Amino acid sequence: MNKIVREKIPLVHCITNYVTVNDVANAILAVGGSPIMADDIHEVEEITAISSALVINIGTLNERTAASMFAAASTANKKNVPIILDPVGAGVSSLRNKITERLLKNFKLAAIRGNLSEIAFCAGKNSSTRGVDSNDSDKKFSAAEIAKIVAEKYSCIAIITGAVDTITDGKNFAQIKNGVAEMGKITGTGCMLSGILGAYIGACEDKFSAAVSAVASMGIAGEISFEKYSEVGTGSLHIGIIDALSKIDDEIISARGKIFYED
Amino acid sequence: MNKIVREKIPLVHCITNYVTVNDVANAILAVGGSPIMADDIHEVEEITAISSALVINIGTLNERTAASMFAAASTANKKNVPIILDPVGAGVSSLRNKITERLLKNFKLAAIRGNLSEIAFCAGKNSSTRGVDSNDSDKKFSAAEIAKIVAEKYSCIAIITGAVDTITDGKNFAQIKNGVAEMGKITGTGCMLSGILGAYIGACEDKFSAAVSAVASMGIAGEISFEKYSEVGTGSLHIGIIDALSKIDDEIISARGKIFYED
Amino acid sequence: MNKIVREKIPLVHCITNYVTVNDVANAILAVGGSPIMADDIHEVEEITAISSALVINIGTLNERTAASMFAAASTANKKNVPIILDPVGAGVSSLRNKITERLLKNFKLAAIRGNLSEIAFCAGKNSSTRGVDSNDSDKKFSAAEIAKIVAEKYSCIAIITGAVDTITDGKNFAQIKNGVAEMGKITGTGCMLSGILGAYIGACEDKFSAAVSAVASMGIAGEISFEKYSEVGTGSLHIGIIDALSKIDDEIISARGKIFYED
Repeated sequence: MNKIVREKIPLVHCITNYVTVNDVANAILAVGGSPIMADDIHEVEEITAISSALVINIGTLNERTAASMFAAASTANKKNVPIILDPVGAGVSSLRNKITERLLKNFKLAAIRGNLSEIAFCAGKNSSTRGVDSNDSDKKFSAAEIAKIVAEKYSCIAIITGAVDTITDGKNFAQIKNGVAEMGKITGTGCMLSGILGAYIGACEDKFSAAVSAVASMGIAGEISFEKYSEVGTGSLHIGIIDALSKIDDEIISARGKIFYED
Repeated sequence: MNKIVREKIPLVHCITNYVTVNDVANAILAVGGSPIMADDIHEVEEITAISSALVINIGTLNERTAASMFAAASTANKKNVPIILDPVGAGVSSLRNKITERLLKNFKLAAIRGNLSEIAFCAGKNSSTRGVDSNDSDKKFSAAEIAKIVAEKYSCIAIITGAVDTITDGKNFAQIKNGVAEMGKITGTGCMLSGILGAYIGACEDKFSAAVSAVASMGIAGEISFEKYSEVGTGSLHIGIIDALSKIDDEIISARGKIFYED
Repeated sequence: MNKIVREKIPLVHCITNYVTVNDVANAILAVGGSPIMADDIHEVEEITAISSALVINIGTLNERTAASMFAAASTANKKNVPIILDPVGAGVSSLRNKITERLLKNFKLAAIRGNLSEIAFCAGKNSSTRGVDSNDSDKKFSAAEIAKIVAEKYSCIAIITGAVDTITDGKNFAQIKNGVAEMGKITGTGCMLSGILGAYIGACEDKFSAAVSAVASMGIAGEISFEKYSEVGTGSLHIGIIDALSKIDDEIISARGKIFYED
């Protein structure tokens, strides 16, 4: 799948938070895509219209950018541009909840990616999230159950990342056991993955397999970087993830991917 | 003190500038905290209310985010969430002066951190600041005198960073001689420190000692990185600071801290 | 020229996009300047007035920041502060086109820097740009021809960056063959260069030679980093560029610069 991304160089329009935006752009470039960040309502429709995917990340949303997200999402649906939603911090504030609900209700999404709490919120299973870099504490439903609910409710690919990543479109189901816990000590690994999902899903016909490859790419990049930099620190771990993404290919994904499919 | 931060994992709400926000988030994670960046007026109150500290940094403020700062600060005072103010560029523009004055006048602050010019402005001792990464040129009052004025005037911890860092709450007084001049060649070392102060002050009961540990952590991290990367350049020096922060602990602070207390 | 930058430490006011703003600030610091990022309309005039250069980058512009760009540019013209325009994505959306045209029409610019498509747009030679990190596809006019049109039409220095960089003020003409293609796999090398141009042009009397030195500095930094990190990946390549910029001097530029002048 990565080969297709590198050949097609999909343009990925991101309306994303200003905390991790540089990493998201560099991660998309690293796996072979071409990022464009734009959030003014007077240009988002034009830009989504020429893009291969639209990534909406509500990490530092405000009223101005929320309106732009709706306008871009509307264009994306009209033009069949796949939308990837990253509901950062859904469950943490009424604003984030409201915007997430409006996006879920009004638009056809290709994929939704978040941690267990965020996707549990999308499933209508309220849970408490403690910050955007928190560990998940909602254990009432398993990740597999939550993902299935979301995939079926919104006819999309649901992706829950954590110690084990869960991916399902309602029919197909995969779990990925790549990645290291220390990735949680760097802000933006989730945001980067959502950007990468835009590149893979934007480039590939088989959206489920594309999502699996994207998630595996990120986990493997984390492992490779951790092998090199665990003793050095999280600054180098961060840079090493971009390094590894820029060298990723389908051979590495095949060799290192710990991907488990289920019927 | 660092051990307490790593145990409590304080949630630190930052309303901060978009120049250095990624570094601030990664620095907070590195020392053991959990950052959340949010600046829309419709969610800042909810987020401050669940946080252990609120960091307000006026580096790229605008009218929208200034209003959010006031709303968040008001909630912080009601909920006894300590506020750390970083008055970036106070003295440089009327807007920054006005917002800084309103924050100083209307809210109880736990700590104020800046360079000599910025804190001199807070002391009501006008001085000329030349850019946010400038060296201090106001030599009319010593840093110790300025810090004491601010600490007493606002009943807070005043922190002036420079070649020697000065910290006082009006009763206790410390100077820290860690750090290297080359840290001034990287944007954001001050902003990162303000974020780290949020983590330490948010987690620890003894706020003065927490501030001392936070300031020492940053200086020591700068030294460790400089020992490794002085010949390489400021890009690596920048990453090395995050690396060192992620490995900091109370033993390193004890061993390397050049902290001088005075009565 | 770099020696002059390091001696004068020009204050460079940037109204720039939030994707690459941290790199722009660090790149300006690395070559010897002092960056200040500010975009609120209530302070940009004061800040431009005390600056040595104003860098306007429309990468993630919105209506609020566009108004600030006009206010700052107006002050810059009154105070003879040189303006560097980086029309990121000109040609991609009506908004970017309109703002670019207003900046070109209403203000005296010292320099305009972009890729071939962006500068072709400024020349009134419409071309299709595919994303902000795209390769140039408009081959109707050569870069030399487009640069000459822009330099003469706006009485400014026109800089087109690509495999070969083209610089002209209408009278003098230079091409620079430094740099590596892999710089296109990192977001922000163009933005960083525009920031560096602000530092060089702000510090030096001979604006054309300053622009040539700035462009050569960036290309050489890319080469030095690539020699070190080509096998490692684009995360390290990115950091290595800042490293190399922080060590650049006129000797390195003389020794490694592939600068070709023409009459």
